[in-house]
Amino acid sequence: MPQPLKRYFPILQWAKTYDRQILGADLMAAVIVTIMLIPQSLAYALLAGLPPEVGLYASILPLVAYAIFGTSRVLAVGPVAVVSLMTAAALGNLALQGTTEYLIAAITLAFMSGVMLTLMGLLRLGFLANFLSHPVIAGFITASGILIATSQLKHILGITAHGHTLPELLTSLMAHLPETNLYTVTLGATALAFLFWTRKGLKPFLLKLGVTPRLADVITKAGPVAAVAATTLSAYTFDLAEKGVAIVGTVPTGLPPLSAPSFSPDLWSQLFLAALLISIIGFVESVSVAQTLAAKRRQRIDPDQELIGLGTSNIASAISGGYPVTGGFARSVVNFDAGAQTPAAGAFTAIGIAGAALFLTPLLFFLPKATLAATIIVAVLSLVDLSILRHAWGYSRVDFAAVATTIALTLGLGVEVGVSAGVILSIALHLYKTSRPHVAEVGLVPGTQHFRNILRHKVKTAPHLVTLRIDESLYFANARFLEDYVYDRVVCDQPITDVVLMASAVNEIDMSALESLEAINSRLKELNIRLHFSEVKGPVMDRLKRSHFLDDLNGEIFLAQYDAWTKLSNSDTSQAA
Amino acid sequence: MPQPLKRYFPILQWAKTYDRQILGADLMAAVIVTIMLIPQSLAYALLAGLPPEVGLYASILPLVAYAIFGTSRVLAVGPVAVVSLMTAAALGNLALQGTTEYLIAAITLAFMSGVMLTLMGLLRLGFLANFLSHPVIAGFITASGILIATSQLKHILGITAHGHTLPELLTSLMAHLPETNLYTVTLGATALAFLFWTRKGLKPFLLKLGVTPRLADVITKAGPVAAVAATTLSAYTFDLAEKGVAIVGTVPTGLPPLSAPSFSPDLWSQLFLAALLISIIGFVESVSVAQTLAAKRRQRIDPDQELIGLGTSNIASAISGGYPVTGGFARSVVNFDAGAQTPAAGAFTAIGIAGAALFLTPLLFFLPKATLAATIIVAVLSLVDLSILRHAWGYSRVDFAAVATTIALTLGLGVEVGVSAGVILSIALHLYKTSRPHVAEVGLVPGTQHFRNILRHKVKTAPHLVTLRIDESLYFANARFLEDYVYDRVVCDQPITDVVLMASAVNEIDMSALESLEAINSRLKELNIRLHFSEVKGPVMDRLKRSHFLDDLNGEIFLAQYDAWTKLSNSDTSQAA
Repeated sequence: MPQPLKRYFPILQWAKTYDRQILGADLMAAVIVTIMLIPQSLAYALLAGLPPEVGLYASILPLVAYAIFGTSRVLAVGPVAVVSLMTAAALGNLALQGTTEYLIAAITLAFMSGVMLTLMGLLRLGFLANFLSHPVIAGFITASGILIATSQLKHILGITAHGHTLPELLTSLMAHLPETNLYTVTLGATALAFLFWTRKGLKPFLLKLGVTPRLADVITKAGPVAAVAATTLSAYTFDLAEKGVAIVGTVPTGLPPLSAPSFSPDLWSQLFLAALLISIIGFVESVSVAQTLAAKRRQRIDPDQELIGLGTSNIASAISGGYPVTGGFARSVVNFDAGAQTPAAGAFTAIGIAGAALFLTPLLFFLPKATLAATIIVAVLSLVDLSILRHAWGYSRVDFAAVATTIALTLGLGVEVGVSAGVILSIALHLYKTSRPHVAEVGLVPGTQHFRNILRHKVKTAPHLVTLRIDESLYFANARFLEDYVYDRVVCDQPITDVVLMASAVNEIDMSALESLEAINSRLKELNIRLHFSEVKGPVMDRLKRSHFLDDLNGEIFLAQYDAWTKLSNSDTSQAA
Repeated sequence: MPQPLKRYFPILQWAKTYDRQILGADLMAAVIVTIMLIPQSLAYALLAGLPPEVGLYASILPLVAYAIFGTSRVLAVGPVAVVSLMTAAALGNLALQGTTEYLIAAITLAFMSGVMLTLMGLLRLGFLANFLSHPVIAGFITASGILIATSQLKHILGITAHGHTLPELLTSLMAHLPETNLYTVTLGATALAFLFWTRKGLKPFLLKLGVTPRLADVITKAGPVAAVAATTLSAYTFDLAEKGVAIVGTVPTGLPPLSAPSFSPDLWSQLFLAALLISIIGFVESVSVAQTLAAKRRQRIDPDQELIGLGTSNIASAISGGYPVTGGFARSVVNFDAGAQTPAAGAFTAIGIAGAALFLTPLLFFLPKATLAATIIVAVLSLVDLSILRHAWGYSRVDFAAVATTIALTLGLGVEVGVSAGVILSIALHLYKTSRPHVAEVGLVPGTQHFRNILRHKVKTAPHLVTLRIDESLYFANARFLEDYVYDRVVCDQPITDVVLMASAVNEIDMSALESLEAINSRLKELNIRLHFSEVKGPVMDRLKRSHFLDDLNGEIFLAQYDAWTKLSNSDTSQAA
């Protein structure tokens, strides 16, 4: 089989060893994920401001596309909370919820995100995701969880409220609080309490009753389905819709319709940034789940091919009436725990959801929206982890600043501003740190050939010899800093005849830094001080050889710092004697 | 004297030792700089699209302000070519040249730039200038020189032409070429030829005639003044204005008027980016001249105080009818060579220019604009140095990309786009490089305690022990790369029991990287491989101690790589025996 075919169609790798045993495992996992996905897909569509059937549509074709193009064996693709929130934020300014324009914009967003992800995959730009640092992602997910949970409170209370930021949401909720519907809030609070209990208390309870752990797991996962069934039944029995409880209403029956995105340049330019952020956030979330789960089974995933897998999933979503999708954390873990062996499990899940779209939608008529809101709140509160603030504070102020800013701006100004600011701040703080590098004056650790900071260790030094270890690559941002540092160090001390720059931590010297080194060399020459280097790395030395710097150098290059010490400190001892 | 007073008013440091001898030197330098500055200030005002007297105004109060607040002893502040070009580019879209609005916008630009520079100085943000890498600056200056020289060709040809980019300028020049005025082109070409000759050929000629080098220098510097005098005289004698030669016309006589910037929020937001770029480019140009000249006399300049010096100069320019100024390269070198000892030389120059504004302006009526254009062209062509492209190509492709992009975009899309793109590209390329760090597998250089790359040196290794030297700080952009690298290295080789990460080049481990190290540690643990570290630096170790990482670490921390080798390779030998 030709290599490119294998690379771009990972299905060809696992399909040839597919057997009855793997089929059994995949089918079992698919059943459990389907049970979990039906209420989730309806709820996340609601969160995105879309009709509930759109959530089902986004859980069919995209899963098939990922089964063909994805490299993770267990990633469960579909609607997820954070991306649904970002979709709502992106579309909220463009069109009113419930209009055709809103739906078309959602489809277009999925298509744009799909094209972007696929292109990034083909161009092998997977590394770009690395510029979202862990603290920024952690802060963003936490803040998104808080925003999502708050945004769903209106459904629990049975009131209307709007807003894409925490202050907006809270103000709106407070203003409409007097309109709270008692039937809705009773039903919503009961559903919430039940779901929290199934998540925390049900499994220990079942185990105590003697149920096998495996079965207890499946029953626990079915909690949301039970809540959906029970509340739908009560809404039907007690005619709660008449009493002001919002219900889902008519959900069209049938397979996803064929759909097409808009190609309006106006719409594309309005959605561009949102599509880019959704693509990157979705990819980062998905790839880290996939990597974590792959490592547990000693499998590998290919980030660039993952981009293609998620990209084609989103394009598949766009042509089948769906909205942006990605790999979900909770769902993938369930899929993994349930024993899914190949992406075929995802395709079987798609068949399950298609069955639901064909046969179950009439049953959803009386489903209260408060129940869906309760499933969302319970799901997203597990994402909220403010301890990241404490950890970051303890480890580094810079990381703390990035997390705190991301959380504050996401809550205060919305998801797009929050995550953009987090990325920019991470990069800016990193550049700031490297622009003022740590420089240590080092001496010989007695009895070794090892050199350490004179301020931290008891080391030998020679009065006329200064050895500076530069703890940073030399590039434009810190070139001038070094110039000043060396100059300051040598002018304040009289008997210095030799300066050694220990370059063991210098991984790069760019042209700006080279000019600074030339300036240092010529200044020291005027002061009758020789400039030496030690432990210059191979790649850096290669580059220096291509310039004139080594010809003009007023000193030597030593392979090891110990060689420099032996030669330069000895000559001193003899001078001193 | 209180320290802050001394810091913010460098004049207090040099004024107390001022004596008659220094006065003599400063006066001599001031005379030479004044002679050079009169035609330059008129010409650069023309380049900025402003009336000629504005150039004179910008050469009076700003020099006095710099003498009080600046730290360089020899920097000559005033209108310079690149900043004049940037001023023209910024104002060209706002108002028509010659209108009051245009002049007020120029004054406002100087004021905004002055406020920005002063604030940056007070906040000690001088390091920000470091993010303009040398190649970007070199490329920008070269491209600006080409743009400026091209923009002045219209005055030499006596035609009208417009544009802020090379294609615009060339198209416009070609379109109007048939309107060339023969008198103008004759006069302009003669002036050009004469000025080139005074720059290159006059000094050797005078020396051959037996003139002292000192006098030859002064005569050479007076070349532009001679050209101005001769062409003004011919314009007057032959009534060239009647024949279509553009002349300067009435220049108001008198000292600079008191002026005030506009405080319209609209204008401020339109000029914001331009003011910021002018401030940064002006500062970088100025501070590098100042540093170079200070080093020659073993003096120091303080970049943060320089920001205040240039900031107050620009504010002084704004309140006295001027436009943005900065320290000029050629003029400062002349000031230095002429023997200026203190910034008082600048103040004396200001008096000279004030004298010119009071008494000489009537003589400028017949001065042909072509002469001024010729002085500009000769001055800026010395800035054009395309050899930077060749040097950068030879040294590093990354630096080359930054230079080439800056030059291409400055010429093709204008100064603001060019320099912004250069800065962004420098940073992006730097991040890209650090996101894929160099990792070397190292072994012991026999007979030493030194470890080098196994691919470049003959070194000793042990089969069960892998030592990886990571040549980069570990941070969010490369955290995942390391995870993959270590994993790939250990799964392909069977007998590995120990991995040592040699951290001599790791200057930082941020939270993202810490999480990656934790992931590496737990994965290796599952594979029964121990993970060790060696040569971890003090600041990095301090931070690791604040996390749980060291408690969970499945191996040891060695002070020196040689200690790790001694312990881990010996245990192998005994195993092998």
